[in-house]
Amino acid sequence: MEQLESFERLCLNQATTQRWNLREAVEGCVRAGIPWIGLWRNKIAEIGLKGSRQLVRDAGLRVSSMIAGGYFPTVSAAERQKRLDENRRAIEEAAELEAEVLVLVGGGIPDRDIDCARKCVAEGIEQLVPYAKSYGVKLGIEPLHPMYAAERSVVVTLAQANDLAKSYRPDEVGVVVDVFHVWWDPDLYHQIALAGERILGFHVSDWVVPFSHFLLGRGMMGDGVIELRRIRKALDAAGYQGPIEVEIFNQAIWDQPGDEVLAVIKERYLEHL
Amino acid sequence: MEQLESFERLCLNQATTQRWNLREAVEGCVRAGIPWIGLWRNKIAEIGLKGSRQLVRDAGLRVSSMIAGGYFPTVSAAERQKRLDENRRAIEEAAELEAEVLVLVGGGIPDRDIDCARKCVAEGIEQLVPYAKSYGVKLGIEPLHPMYAAERSVVVTLAQANDLAKSYRPDEVGVVVDVFHVWWDPDLYHQIALAGERILGFHVSDWVVPFSHFLLGRGMMGDGVIELRRIRKALDAAGYQGPIEVEIFNQAIWDQPGDEVLAVIKERYLEHL
Repeated sequence: MEQLESFERLCLNQATTQRWNLREAVEGCVRAGIPWIGLWRNKIAEIGLKGSRQLVRDAGLRVSSMIAGGYFPTVSAAERQKRLDENRRAIEEAAELEAEVLVLVGGGIPDRDIDCARKCVAEGIEQLVPYAKSYGVKLGIEPLHPMYAAERSVVVTLAQANDLAKSYRPDEVGVVVDVFHVWWDPDLYHQIALAGERILGFHVSDWVVPFSHFLLGRGMMGDGVIELRRIRKALDAAGYQGPIEVEIFNQAIWDQPGDEVLAVIKERYLEHL
Repeated sequence: MEQLESFERLCLNQATTQRWNLREAVEGCVRAGIPWIGLWRNKIAEIGLKGSRQLVRDAGLRVSSMIAGGYFPTVSAAERQKRLDENRRAIEEAAELEAEVLVLVGGGIPDRDIDCARKCVAEGIEQLVPYAKSYGVKLGIEPLHPMYAAERSVVVTLAQANDLAKSYRPDEVGVVVDVFHVWWDPDLYHQIALAGERILGFHVSDWVVPFSHFLLGRGMMGDGVIELRRIRKALDAAGYQGPIEVEIFNQAIWDQPGDEVLAVIKERYLEHL
């Protein structure tokens, strides 16, 4: 489809309206006619799992994904076990909230050995798969931008995420494509085509020039240099028809009233996706 | 070689001692016994081309490279011609200063079309090669970190730089490997081996955690997570025996007395390279 003509695939990731708690975000989505929501574990924890489930279900929203599990590399066996336990809880919560996907963020480098950290990620996923499967939760590996390799994710390209996923069935492990993290990649379109049915999520925002903040530098769609429509069409061609999730970390956007932000999102969504 | 045992390959890139003019940097290198220097065009302009050449020659220093040419993508034909002229001047200056290599930085995205910008880079290099050859100057394509893709260089991986270089002879166009820009790349060691005799430069610094500044976040070798010795050995194995150039953009380091910075560089060089 050349342009999107409805909001049926539009999804609000809670990170975009950071000041809203889950109740406010759910009510905001209902007011704006946004049918999907992406949930963060810290926001769920504020309200509690049962209450969160009820809120989302009563509003008739669908949950794109729960964010985040992963963060596998550690230096101690004790810490490793702790993170495995935490990931299992994240899977249980994702299942409870009827999120089809738990987004996995690789984790950073604990001790100047990037290969070892990458091995930890592969092993961590291997350990989680049977547990996720038993709960009916898919694992979506989200490569992060290389500027986060040291601190957040040693998985930095879609090629890596595809490689990690391919040992498993597509209904077990897939990938999440976030434009902010992957737009620069000369191999992007090839890897999107390769990912095919493994694409479990699509996050959108923009890369604004001049870049202003290491963590909060993401912009509203259309404010930057990312070819959003081209990437969306590549995902369409690869067979992805799931939610298009707006995830923007940006203090100025957080400081605006949520309803106004959602109105701009809807406008930009039709214009740029 | 497992460890480096002398300073014969050590090179000071002028960016590391930002407060020093060329004369001060040359004198600093002589005092510290650093045999190589990497020159910036703006620092040469302060002193003048002839005076700069005399200073470097009288001190007996060798010039690793001149920085920088490139910045090819533009939206207007007039601006394009202006940049081509500027690149020709950079080649002339590199030849005058007996720098074997002119470092090329690709340039950013003028109009939300990354493929077009990348094509501009390829065409720009093609236009420059005969001119550079006639002056005996090699062109060294330096991929920058993907976080600079929008504003500084659409060439973001060593694979891309190798691809761009391979249409030319190794004595015409090669690549410059800067650890800060490429350390995160899952394909790094493979691409270093592929680059082989095309490696025309090796820049070192470190990626410090937590990352502190988009432009000035580079750290002293050993202060971050980059596996410096492993990368240096990979370059050795690929056949590179040229200068190892310390290029650190960091306000705290700039604020220290240059001689102290050079002393730390020498210590860290033996310890980490």
